[in-house]
Amino acid sequence: MTSGIGRRRAAARDEGGSAYTERRTEIVAAAAEMFKRNGYRGTKLADVAEAMGLDRASLYYYVGSKEELFQDVVGGAVEANADAAEKIAAGTGTAPDKLRALVVGLMTSYAETYPFLYVYIQENLGPGARDRSPWAREMARHNKRYENAVVAIVRSGVEEGSLATDTQPWVVAFGVIGMVAWSNRWFNPHESTVPATEIGAAYADTLLNGLINRG
Amino acid sequence: MTSGIGRRRAAARDEGGSAYTERRTEIVAAAAEMFKRNGYRGTKLADVAEAMGLDRASLYYYVGSKEELFQDVVGGAVEANADAAEKIAAGTGTAPDKLRALVVGLMTSYAETYPFLYVYIQENLGPGARDRSPWAREMARHNKRYENAVVAIVRSGVEEGSLATDTQPWVVAFGVIGMVAWSNRWFNPHESTVPATEIGAAYADTLLNGLINRG
Repeated sequence: MTSGIGRRRAAARDEGGSAYTERRTEIVAAAAEMFKRNGYRGTKLADVAEAMGLDRASLYYYVGSKEELFQDVVGGAVEANADAAEKIAAGTGTAPDKLRALVVGLMTSYAETYPFLYVYIQENLGPGARDRSPWAREMARHNKRYENAVVAIVRSGVEEGSLATDTQPWVVAFGVIGMVAWSNRWFNPHESTVPATEIGAAYADTLLNGLINRG
Repeated sequence: MTSGIGRRRAAARDEGGSAYTERRTEIVAAAAEMFKRNGYRGTKLADVAEAMGLDRASLYYYVGSKEELFQDVVGGAVEANADAAEKIAAGTGTAPDKLRALVVGLMTSYAETYPFLYVYIQENLGPGARDRSPWAREMARHNKRYENAVVAIVRSGVEEGSLATDTQPWVVAFGVIGMVAWSNRWFNPHESTVPATEIGAAYADTLLNGLINRG
């Protein structure tokens, strides 16, 4: 029966009918809330089914396993961030404005999706990662899209003369990302006395204007 | 015999005789070179012994295991960095000068000790780490000393009016560290087209003066 359900699920996903896709998206969103509240270990597929008013067999029509659900949740956040960065890079405005939007957006996205983007960072799914599963490779592609968008913003700023640096744009871009992404080691939006918006704005100010007091 | 050697080693270390300590330091330095060249797996205690002109039994008088040697190598780099940060923080000069020295020093230390400080970062031996061995706790203490030194520099800069920020000094300090430490994901001094000194100087410039082109 499991493999029968598996085949039906694969067929339904490939077909991509809008009712099926919408229902699956709702399930992923519900699971995200449960993962946030109860952690990965504390979340059972049966609980997700119950929250969605489904029996387990019906849930299996949409989702193959808890791991698949978790990867969808994390992957959705990573993909959305890459999309946002590309949108900022392609938008109108000066490079400093874009860099500010990107830095603030990245920091607040960590809080809004907490802990999913940090899970991704801590899994270290970059190009050198040992995990070469299709999911890990998809994550690496989104990550590369994100990095490329930041490099493009810095490079266009140097070209238009709004930004200045003595090194390569990609070195600056990795520094920008690092400043914000390092927060995976110390930031917890539920416990922090300093909100993500303040951190993001302060990091954008530092990166654009510097810490030197020109008072 | 091993436990006999183990007891003699423990006694000699506790006694801390200068000849014993010097010889042990030489062995750790030789092992560091071998770990760098051949990796952890590619390094055998027998090779370290041979390079030092010792037989294995004599080596065991100084070193209990390959893991102990590796922890000494990594720990030595982490401790030296914390010492350097405290020295900068306690030194003379303005906060911007200190911050520059710290950022350039941190980035170049990654290259000079490569890959040992990155190994430490990637092992993630912070306060939340699962590894609660005496070694891991010692590393966490050095790490805390490093962080405290950076926070102290930023705070003193805000107090003396040479630095300005709209957030807490510790938030800025973690951003500074993150910008540089994130390089563990992409920097390899043997392959990089951009040297650590250039990266460190550019990050210090960015943090102090900002990326905005003031022409």
